[in-house]
Amino acid sequence: MTTTVNRQVLLAEKPAGKLGVEHFRLREAPMPVAGEGEVLVRVRYLSLDAANRAWMQAATYRSAVDAGTVMAGHALAEVLESRVPGLAAGDLVMGDTGWQQYAVLPGAGLQKLPRLEPLTHLLSVYGIAGLTAYFGLLEIGRPKEGDTVVVSAAAGSVGSLVGQIAKIRGARVVGIAGGAAKCAVLTRELGFDAAVDYKAGSLYKDLKAAAPGGIDVYFDNVGGEIFETCLFQMKLHGRIACCGAVSQYDGEPPAHGPRGVPGLIVTRRLTVQGFILHDFMARSDEALAQLQKWVGEGRLKVREDLVEGLENAPRGLVGLLAGENVGKRMVHVS
Amino acid sequence: MTTTVNRQVLLAEKPAGKLGVEHFRLREAPMPVAGEGEVLVRVRYLSLDAANRAWMQAATYRSAVDAGTVMAGHALAEVLESRVPGLAAGDLVMGDTGWQQYAVLPGAGLQKLPRLEPLTHLLSVYGIAGLTAYFGLLEIGRPKEGDTVVVSAAAGSVGSLVGQIAKIRGARVVGIAGGAAKCAVLTRELGFDAAVDYKAGSLYKDLKAAAPGGIDVYFDNVGGEIFETCLFQMKLHGRIACCGAVSQYDGEPPAHGPRGVPGLIVTRRLTVQGFILHDFMARSDEALAQLQKWVGEGRLKVREDLVEGLENAPRGLVGLLAGENVGKRMVHVS
Repeated sequence: MTTTVNRQVLLAEKPAGKLGVEHFRLREAPMPVAGEGEVLVRVRYLSLDAANRAWMQAATYRSAVDAGTVMAGHALAEVLESRVPGLAAGDLVMGDTGWQQYAVLPGAGLQKLPRLEPLTHLLSVYGIAGLTAYFGLLEIGRPKEGDTVVVSAAAGSVGSLVGQIAKIRGARVVGIAGGAAKCAVLTRELGFDAAVDYKAGSLYKDLKAAAPGGIDVYFDNVGGEIFETCLFQMKLHGRIACCGAVSQYDGEPPAHGPRGVPGLIVTRRLTVQGFILHDFMARSDEALAQLQKWVGEGRLKVREDLVEGLENAPRGLVGLLAGENVGKRMVHVS
Repeated sequence: MTTTVNRQVLLAEKPAGKLGVEHFRLREAPMPVAGEGEVLVRVRYLSLDAANRAWMQAATYRSAVDAGTVMAGHALAEVLESRVPGLAAGDLVMGDTGWQQYAVLPGAGLQKLPRLEPLTHLLSVYGIAGLTAYFGLLEIGRPKEGDTVVVSAAAGSVGSLVGQIAKIRGARVVGIAGGAAKCAVLTRELGFDAAVDYKAGSLYKDLKAAAPGGIDVYFDNVGGEIFETCLFQMKLHGRIACCGAVSQYDGEPPAHGPRGVPGLIVTRRLTVQGFILHDFMARSDEALAQLQKWVGEGRLKVREDLVEGLENAPRGLVGLLAGENVGKRMVHVS
């Protein structure tokens, strides 16, 4: 190695309200050293996810990120030095490296990844986003042929894949996204049947027009008012797959939940189910094989959104929470 | 027949807020006459249910009850005259007779019921309440042995059975009810492990003390703040069976839903599922056989709460919505 410095991005301060770049700080630290049972890795691509913001609020499915520590995050990384059997220098792995150039990871649970082209697909369609879309839609939403499927944050990394997988499975698909440009991507590039711009100010009416018979499956990425609007348009025995609540991560915790809970859940016999990809990881091979087949056949289009340079990760995450990305956003670190 | 008069209770006016006896009116109408394919019945016991109140608000799983019409309601009735094959005078049936002494019912869907003793059990443990508790708990809540099951409106017709069935299935059972007297019935008579009085003003803390490890299955009869409190104490992969929302039937529709929806549903991977007994009616024989066995063995205790006289049905329903009953409330009409 020619460097002895490890550039890092710290969460300098926990945001009380909206996250800004001022909550982060750059630091140079010494190169970490791998101990027995660990690997030293070089971070290649860092995944930016709405969940990163939730981690700052409180313990969720992982412990909270504390102020003054390296910001947590998953990345595609290359092994520089291995003290773990089964992994060697040059191998690609995915791990919680945090926002830094180099990291030491415990060997337990690390898997060597194939060198696919483009590598970025390992973070999008073959990464958390793709697997989340696959299992969340097919196992939690369970669309049947001819069903009407609605997905929110539809131009995002998960939503853009959910809608396309629902189409492959024979559903009629409506995407909810912010702004006309994103809506155009959904219908013109990604094959959605309709798109609704929630920023246009008439979501209830516009959604009703796009899904006049009601919603069989709602794949929720956002929570809040969009969740409530969809809830009121669910059909009997409909399913709501709760994947995230990005509307509620950045700012004050919401004062109240959606109206209609649990009244409409009873009268329409709905199933509202939350999930975390982790619960399905034992079946990831099955999903990856199917996703690769669909991508290979051109049936699944992958949108990616690259931010250049570790120092731009804070700006990238702030922008992601404001909804500026189309497709999977990641940071090219090295 | 010695009478030619049919006493009826009308919903005189739709309540804008809380239901009162002033919203009802007594009337004497001529005896109805059964046409071809219909039966004339004498109403014996009229079921009072929180859902009666919901029917006044809007169409739910049935059309709304209009002002100026006979109040809708299910009853155990005896056939006086039959123009339907398979039913004869003296047979017992269950049907939507409405609040009146005599009714004409379409023959389609009517089933002759066994003359059990006491007859009232046909409206409680072998009626909608018993079947709702059975299927709602076992098919929607799905408790496993050792699970912690919490049920609200636990001293009510459904709740009192849910808790006992959960005990039979090996769960630890906590009931939520209003007032010390009801709580005492739950733990001393019905075998609940613990009871929490939501009127004591410290529900979150008291529930935490009664279910320190969290809740695996919450059977919700009430919605609103109790739903929210339980939601925040659910364990990973917990199930919420949504059976009703009695807190929201009597008065203004709620301004907001429970906090934590959908955030907690995601992070704790909860399943929140609504159901209506109707969807399970094809399997009612299976449930009735099991319920009869448990009652016969003394493992399931049946609490009933009788109101005497049709003219007291309005007072009985208003009192039910205020939570004054323990067990299944019904009106003895004749």
